[in-house]
Amino acid sequence: MSKIKVGVAGYGTIGQRLADGVAMQEDMELVGIADLAPTLSVRALAENDMIGANGVKYDLYLVDGADKSSFDALGIPTAGTFEELVGKVDIMLDSAPGGIGAKNKELYQRLGKKAIFQGGEKNSVADVFFHGYANYEKGVGADYLKLTSCNTTGLIRTVDCLDRAIGIEKVAITIIRRVADPGDYHRGLTNALQMDKAPSHQAVDLMTIMPHVEATGILVHTPVTHGHIITVLATAKDGKKITKDMALEAFRAHPRIRTVTIDEGFRGNASLFKYARDLGNRRGDMYEIGLWEDSIVESGNDIMYAINIPQESVTIPETIDAIRAAMKMQLTRDEGTAMTNKYLNIGKFKK
Amino acid sequence: MSKIKVGVAGYGTIGQRLADGVAMQEDMELVGIADLAPTLSVRALAENDMIGANGVKYDLYLVDGADKSSFDALGIPTAGTFEELVGKVDIMLDSAPGGIGAKNKELYQRLGKKAIFQGGEKNSVADVFFHGYANYEKGVGADYLKLTSCNTTGLIRTVDCLDRAIGIEKVAITIIRRVADPGDYHRGLTNALQMDKAPSHQAVDLMTIMPHVEATGILVHTPVTHGHIITVLATAKDGKKITKDMALEAFRAHPRIRTVTIDEGFRGNASLFKYARDLGNRRGDMYEIGLWEDSIVESGNDIMYAINIPQESVTIPETIDAIRAAMKMQLTRDEGTAMTNKYLNIGKFKK
Amino acid sequence: MSKIKVGVAGYGTIGQRLADGVAMQEDMELVGIADLAPTLSVRALAENDMIGANGVKYDLYLVDGADKSSFDALGIPTAGTFEELVGKVDIMLDSAPGGIGAKNKELYQRLGKKAIFQGGEKNSVADVFFHGYANYEKGVGADYLKLTSCNTTGLIRTVDCLDRAIGIEKVAITIIRRVADPGDYHRGLTNALQMDKAPSHQAVDLMTIMPHVEATGILVHTPVTHGHIITVLATAKDGKKITKDMALEAFRAHPRIRTVTIDEGFRGNASLFKYARDLGNRRGDMYEIGLWEDSIVESGNDIMYAINIPQESVTIPETIDAIRAAMKMQLTRDEGTAMTNKYLNIGKFKK
Amino acid sequence: MSKIKVGVAGYGTIGQRLADGVAMQEDMELVGIADLAPTLSVRALAENDMIGANGVKYDLYLVDGADKSSFDALGIPTAGTFEELVGKVDIMLDSAPGGIGAKNKELYQRLGKKAIFQGGEKNSVADVFFHGYANYEKGVGADYLKLTSCNTTGLIRTVDCLDRAIGIEKVAITIIRRVADPGDYHRGLTNALQMDKAPSHQAVDLMTIMPHVEATGILVHTPVTHGHIITVLATAKDGKKITKDMALEAFRAHPRIRTVTIDEGFRGNASLFKYARDLGNRRGDMYEIGLWEDSIVESGNDIMYAINIPQESVTIPETIDAIRAAMKMQLTRDEGTAMTNKYLNIGKFKK
Repeated sequence: MSKIKVGVAGYGTIGQRLADGVAMQEDMELVGIADLAPTLSVRALAENDMIGANGVKYDLYLVDGADKSSFDALGIPTAGTFEELVGKVDIMLDSAPGGIGAKNKELYQRLGKKAIFQGGEKNSVADVFFHGYANYEKGVGADYLKLTSCNTTGLIRTVDCLDRAIGIEKVAITIIRRVADPGDYHRGLTNALQMDKAPSHQAVDLMTIMPHVEATGILVHTPVTHGHIITVLATAKDGKKITKDMALEAFRAHPRIRTVTIDEGFRGNASLFKYARDLGNRRGDMYEIGLWEDSIVESGNDIMYAINIPQESVTIPETIDAIRAAMKMQLTRDEGTAMTNKYLNIGKFKK
Repeated sequence: MSKIKVGVAGYGTIGQRLADGVAMQEDMELVGIADLAPTLSVRALAENDMIGANGVKYDLYLVDGADKSSFDALGIPTAGTFEELVGKVDIMLDSAPGGIGAKNKELYQRLGKKAIFQGGEKNSVADVFFHGYANYEKGVGADYLKLTSCNTTGLIRTVDCLDRAIGIEKVAITIIRRVADPGDYHRGLTNALQMDKAPSHQAVDLMTIMPHVEATGILVHTPVTHGHIITVLATAKDGKKITKDMALEAFRAHPRIRTVTIDEGFRGNASLFKYARDLGNRRGDMYEIGLWEDSIVESGNDIMYAINIPQESVTIPETIDAIRAAMKMQLTRDEGTAMTNKYLNIGKFKK
Repeated sequence: MSKIKVGVAGYGTIGQRLADGVAMQEDMELVGIADLAPTLSVRALAENDMIGANGVKYDLYLVDGADKSSFDALGIPTAGTFEELVGKVDIMLDSAPGGIGAKNKELYQRLGKKAIFQGGEKNSVADVFFHGYANYEKGVGADYLKLTSCNTTGLIRTVDCLDRAIGIEKVAITIIRRVADPGDYHRGLTNALQMDKAPSHQAVDLMTIMPHVEATGILVHTPVTHGHIITVLATAKDGKKITKDMALEAFRAHPRIRTVTIDEGFRGNASLFKYARDLGNRRGDMYEIGLWEDSIVESGNDIMYAINIPQESVTIPETIDAIRAAMKMQLTRDEGTAMTNKYLNIGKFKK
Repeated sequence: MSKIKVGVAGYGTIGQRLADGVAMQEDMELVGIADLAPTLSVRALAENDMIGANGVKYDLYLVDGADKSSFDALGIPTAGTFEELVGKVDIMLDSAPGGIGAKNKELYQRLGKKAIFQGGEKNSVADVFFHGYANYEKGVGADYLKLTSCNTTGLIRTVDCLDRAIGIEKVAITIIRRVADPGDYHRGLTNALQMDKAPSHQAVDLMTIMPHVEATGILVHTPVTHGHIITVLATAKDGKKITKDMALEAFRAHPRIRTVTIDEGFRGNASLFKYARDLGNRRGDMYEIGLWEDSIVESGNDIMYAINIPQESVTIPETIDAIRAAMKMQLTRDEGTAMTNKYLNIGKFKK
């Protein structure tokens, strides 16, 4: 079978990781990446002779408005225009800054190419608001998909997991949000917790993906960079009680949920970041969310637990799932996510 | 009526504020404070010629093991021994480091004096685990009381408030905890969120004070110093629905809950800290907890909201309430808390 | 003698403290303050019935573009227009946002009123770039003065102090800058140190005030809110050696330099912030800079030391000095600064 | 030529990176690593089937006091005792916790093995206090060497670089120190800058390595985790002036100094951390120090500049140099450091 040809628009925090993720899939070909300026991310790639993950060469295409001479001056090779890139691919992963994706869509439509957008775009840009585990089949054959954002992606992994095992009708979440990524200087927070108006968009987004669940939540920004923590209170359908053991059993079986404990040394979000670096993972990333077993407590019939969201990398697997669905590479959730997991080495070391 | 004579053991973060709180009560006399060493807090008092809040002179007594010559060398006047202080008072407020209070209790008992302990001591040190609004009457005439800790004190203000207005049977909380006080160097956290094992002690403590409520919760430490934020999900008794308006009406009527909004400029915990400084409050403190009106959301029949806990000062009013109860100055919750509020200028500017 | 009439434009972080500083001067009258919107700072004043420092009532005037109805709706009393305020005063303290001061100057000129601008304005707005200790006499009788910024003000205190005692010809500074004030949400930095291009403007400004000194420096932003720390390497004229004792003697004699040690408990910038709160200072402010005695080290003939700059309040005394100079209240540096110090209780507790 | 056999004691933050560094050297063999407990670092290695850098298998030996059953329970394979490891090697890299190295030395001596200690040990543990660039020849053939600490290692790279090019007689440094590593929870600092008593040990250590240079300095801890920043003021011998161009030329030629600019996007320490991750470097590490070209300023005849120290990895190259010197693999600084640089891919992308 010939490989599915994929392009990536925008080589920022997410775009770099999408390119890496595609480069890891043996049934996909990374045709190229596209960006506007010789950012540090692009320069790091050039310092490596344009070799990215898995030994794959990343051809760099320039979007409209890019100044080719600024790349030439730094000796960074370029491969053509954005339109040329789109012309060569079967599907685009669009991780351009928020709002640009909607504009890019015009080109994708003109050239008859499918595309998958990240969480920064409006839902209206896509036909399907997609999550690999929660609604894979909705994405099968679709032309334009939008991924859930990082928190929503991780959150839904757990809620969908409980829902399939037990049946969930309501969740209330508290998002303890990291305010910036490592290396961000354009935004920050110093010695402050910052409130967002409730309900958080993540709760609203969850209801779009899982319409049979009622969700609400409060989001508080915190001055850290290594991963969000979300507490979830989940209520089962029909007044059913969820025990800690029931929840644990479900979570432990999920390939993209890494259950951890404080006693092992996973004392917080930074422990998981450090662990991913010590694993030797590229960029120090982790695809799994962390779930603290010792945070799980029963509240009447409800269950409460806390998860860690590695914001830079968590959406990569579900985006790869989306390619599989859109391109009909696999027709079912189980087959699609299993193939993604295989190539990303996800879930290999489950307890 | 003669004033109730009060002493304060331990002149640290809490002890200083207890002394100030007593000095503000026109029906109490601050007999003195006691400490071990010429800490910066003691030196600041000495720099002000031992004059504290409300123009009151704070006489300094030395606890066992103190080296009087170290005070003399700095020209800090002392007034006698700890035992002499205890001998002069009607009741002691004990804010000594955790564990010392239990030892001090032997002296209080020997001299036949009442005492109120802070949250750092074990519950067994006291006859009554006390909260001014939730169980004032239990403290009336009691000899040894222990106050709830800062988070529990603020949390119970809101849960008791809803309980009296509506009837509450269950709460699930997420505590986004400040890890240190301003000026702390002996503990800290840098770019990390840190998990505690669930359930948090605050949930357990709430159940001790309000045994008809089932409570659980998860606590996460965050690298900030200006106040905890807690999200609360409260469930009414008998399946009753709590609307946002019902909750708002109850909260707005509570003297020790300051309802605020993001749009006014109260963007987070640091806004409330700044506001207290701009009010000109002594030490930049605030006795009220903040409650964000725009955080209140309905979750099915339940209500969810977020509060701010000014950890350095929040327990002061309830500790003053405890004096009133223990000394039978006022026999009811309404009378006792009203008198405390009057002298601490609490609730004057309710909307 | 009649009091000098002073107005304050802009009631933000600096403006509030300028108003307080003026209110403390028994030979000055605070005619009023001016602002644009009912900010939290204005609301805090209103919550106190418009009573500020020293029991003084602060009349609030509205600048052009203010919506009086927004104040009325909150029950905040206003006293008239900005032009009316300027018409009543002898001199304006302008702490409006950067750039607005230059525009306000047109009004001051039209009404024939003197003014003192803060560090955010360009030097060209003023006739004299002023520092109370370094060039007081240049400000005597001047119409338009501009104060040095917070870091430069504190830095010059020490360099001028050494220069008068020993003679200084060169300084090299490293500014470890706090990135935001407590309560700031519009700017921040999370887990990062941020470089500015060298030389820092503070070094350049020092040379403007002290043209016989060659200065350069590097500034690094850090994610803290409670005071800058500056290290200074100072070289004496004519190859003279500066010993630690010589430096210490000079620093200890300066009223606006508080010499401290780590052993006393002053472990960093936050210790000084906490100490100011514990002193009961309004808003938890400190007018003195801190200077660590145990940071002073000899480097060949040069001397190196570290100081703490309380950014919110450090420029207040020198601004009051500027009023005294501009209005010819005192004609010399010694008389002018002594009067300011007296009313602000500065230097009372020197070792 | 047969490979030099190397062991690593202590598999913590430094030990992991030492093992990786050795594994990259084609003329060395990593015989094994040793540790006490199944820490997260050990578990991460086990999750990768004990495969570390460069595809090398890391055999794990257990130090005295280790509980083998705790490793067995987790399925972590072990290879023998610490003494067995030491028996097999030519030289040990000791990165055990501070103080343990001195105890380990007894074993090394008994078995007649050389060893290299990290900065946490006392100087007396070693015959030579070593820096690859500053005193390589002193280490040639030595039995026991101690590496400079992270800050000192990076600092000396630059001072030695200027010294060889121009001649340096005096430096004054300000160390803006990161307080913890990513993932540290046992130490931290929250919203505070913390002073150390001057002079900093790094200045003292520099004088031990470069006795012809007079050095002093002040160290301030800051609440960040991604690299120290040091400002250096360097004075040339004999009153010679150092221009910016002279300094730049020297720095740009040094393989272990990466000169960067703010305009490129290197806005601070976190930019360099992010860049190393984006390079795909193992663990997101960088061996080079960063030096900001736009921080370099002239101060009279002196030169001032700022550098970034990646604390987790900066000492690895100089430690590898130390193996080369101690084992007489290369007899000169130029040959020894060049071989280390080659295998660690250092300096490949110099401008």
